[in-house]
Amino acid sequence: MNLTILGCYAATPRTFTNPTAQILEIRNRIFLIDCGEGTQVQLRKNKIKFSKINHIFISHLHGDHVFGLIGLISTFTLLGRTTDLSIYGPVGIKELIMMQLKLTSSWTNYNLHFHELASKESAIIYEDDKVVVKTIPLKHRVYTNGYLFQEKPDSRKLNIGAVTRFEIEKCYYQNIKNGKDVLLDDGRLIENHLLTIDPVQPKSYAFCSDTIFNETIVPLIENADVLYHESTFLESESDLALKTMHSTAKQAATIALKANVKQLILGHYSTRYDSIRLFKEEAETIFPNVILGDDGLSFEF
Amino acid sequence: MNLTILGCYAATPRTFTNPTAQILEIRNRIFLIDCGEGTQVQLRKNKIKFSKINHIFISHLHGDHVFGLIGLISTFTLLGRTTDLSIYGPVGIKELIMMQLKLTSSWTNYNLHFHELASKESAIIYEDDKVVVKTIPLKHRVYTNGYLFQEKPDSRKLNIGAVTRFEIEKCYYQNIKNGKDVLLDDGRLIENHLLTIDPVQPKSYAFCSDTIFNETIVPLIENADVLYHESTFLESESDLALKTMHSTAKQAATIALKANVKQLILGHYSTRYDSIRLFKEEAETIFPNVILGDDGLSFEF
Repeated sequence: MNLTILGCYAATPRTFTNPTAQILEIRNRIFLIDCGEGTQVQLRKNKIKFSKINHIFISHLHGDHVFGLIGLISTFTLLGRTTDLSIYGPVGIKELIMMQLKLTSSWTNYNLHFHELASKESAIIYEDDKVVVKTIPLKHRVYTNGYLFQEKPDSRKLNIGAVTRFEIEKCYYQNIKNGKDVLLDDGRLIENHLLTIDPVQPKSYAFCSDTIFNETIVPLIENADVLYHESTFLESESDLALKTMHSTAKQAATIALKANVKQLILGHYSTRYDSIRLFKEEAETIFPNVILGDDGLSFEF
Repeated sequence: MNLTILGCYAATPRTFTNPTAQILEIRNRIFLIDCGEGTQVQLRKNKIKFSKINHIFISHLHGDHVFGLIGLISTFTLLGRTTDLSIYGPVGIKELIMMQLKLTSSWTNYNLHFHELASKESAIIYEDDKVVVKTIPLKHRVYTNGYLFQEKPDSRKLNIGAVTRFEIEKCYYQNIKNGKDVLLDDGRLIENHLLTIDPVQPKSYAFCSDTIFNETIVPLIENADVLYHESTFLESESDLALKTMHSTAKQAATIALKANVKQLILGHYSTRYDSIRLFKEEAETIFPNVILGDDGLSFEF
């Protein structure tokens, strides 16, 4: 699982900081999470293959999370894209995109599938044989969802050494991977655990931005390997966090602690602060394993 | 008159090239011309004061000329802008912006004045005591206007040496500036040209993008000091230019020659070419005074 942060600053794009956008590579799928203005340039700078992006998840319809989407959709067309593109986001995202295509006399060479979200409950919105994506209902000034990306457990791995030693024929291999025991010709029953190796533990990533401090998300993100939680402000501006329905670094760390996640990545920093180090220092007073997110950083989990 | 090219490449924004946007400083007014994605970042990089931009001219509603506008409008609000903003562009631009503000639950702290254009004839769309702006109807795949920015002639300048020599009282100065002669007490009539200096010659700038080769604009831009004319392609791709309703460098130079402008700036280059030097070389076979436009370049005229 690899996470590339294309942008993690609040509000307006600036010379050296970008609004929210992330690329999550999970089990060879590439998901784009949020798409602030300039995301397509950040994708190029970070050498992400445009053609590999087939699913885009938008947390909420504020400009710093969605203004880059129409440009990316247009660029896909210019690049000759033909494969379908699925877009997940709040009700209204379809009108936002289709109206801009119409008024700019534009179109796409590929199918756009909009999955508009309105539920206040967590729901599975994407699932394939290897990955599940669920919404994490957040509390912000507008309808907002975080997203939980979970790998599915792999089937057990064949222990080549063991199956060779027991001289088991290839035709049994799939059954063994599926967990079956094997009865040898000499009547011995070889239990599955002797022929297989435990699969890699499935990983999970929780993206939570933008949101006020909200403990009701804790059960949804419990034990996640990685939690990205917005920290727009420091505690010194907790009144502003409350007023604008954002979180402080300390609050993000409190959610990480209560949810017992392995790692916390901070981001969505207000540009009022001279150094983002302050966010890490504040969060570490509550939760030990804090990573300071920043544009262009890439993490392997 | 100062022109800063924020972006002058066709189609999609890339790591080192930006879609169309320019800042024209003329008689202490600052006009933004077109606003592709990322324009607000280019404004910052080029140290343009956001608060000084009160008039934005959009040539046509294609993404690479307008996708940056909603972000800029939102940033103005975040920066606490209160002064009115006037936006000139094709019919539809108001719906494009207002709908995005509505769907992103956004607003402006300042008044937005939309001046929607539909005429196929050139018209004066802006005028104050020092500057006039006229449309230049262009031929592209969608309704498109270029813009002609003209300084108004200054009043004659007072020749301080002369008025002191003739011992003329200050109360006459305004009349003299307005072109009046002066009758001295001794009966001598001093003609105005002896008391004044010619004003600086008014300058003009013609912006023409995007357009097919179109000689009907020649009378409108005749004798302009500076002409920016799109050159998306080279003659080797003239068939593509025709098909996409763009111009070649040679065609841009031909317009410059026929219109007898002083300088030609090329731009809106297709990103298919390795070096934009080729555009200058091709244009110079037709017109001598060619400037190769590029992102971040600034010209004093």
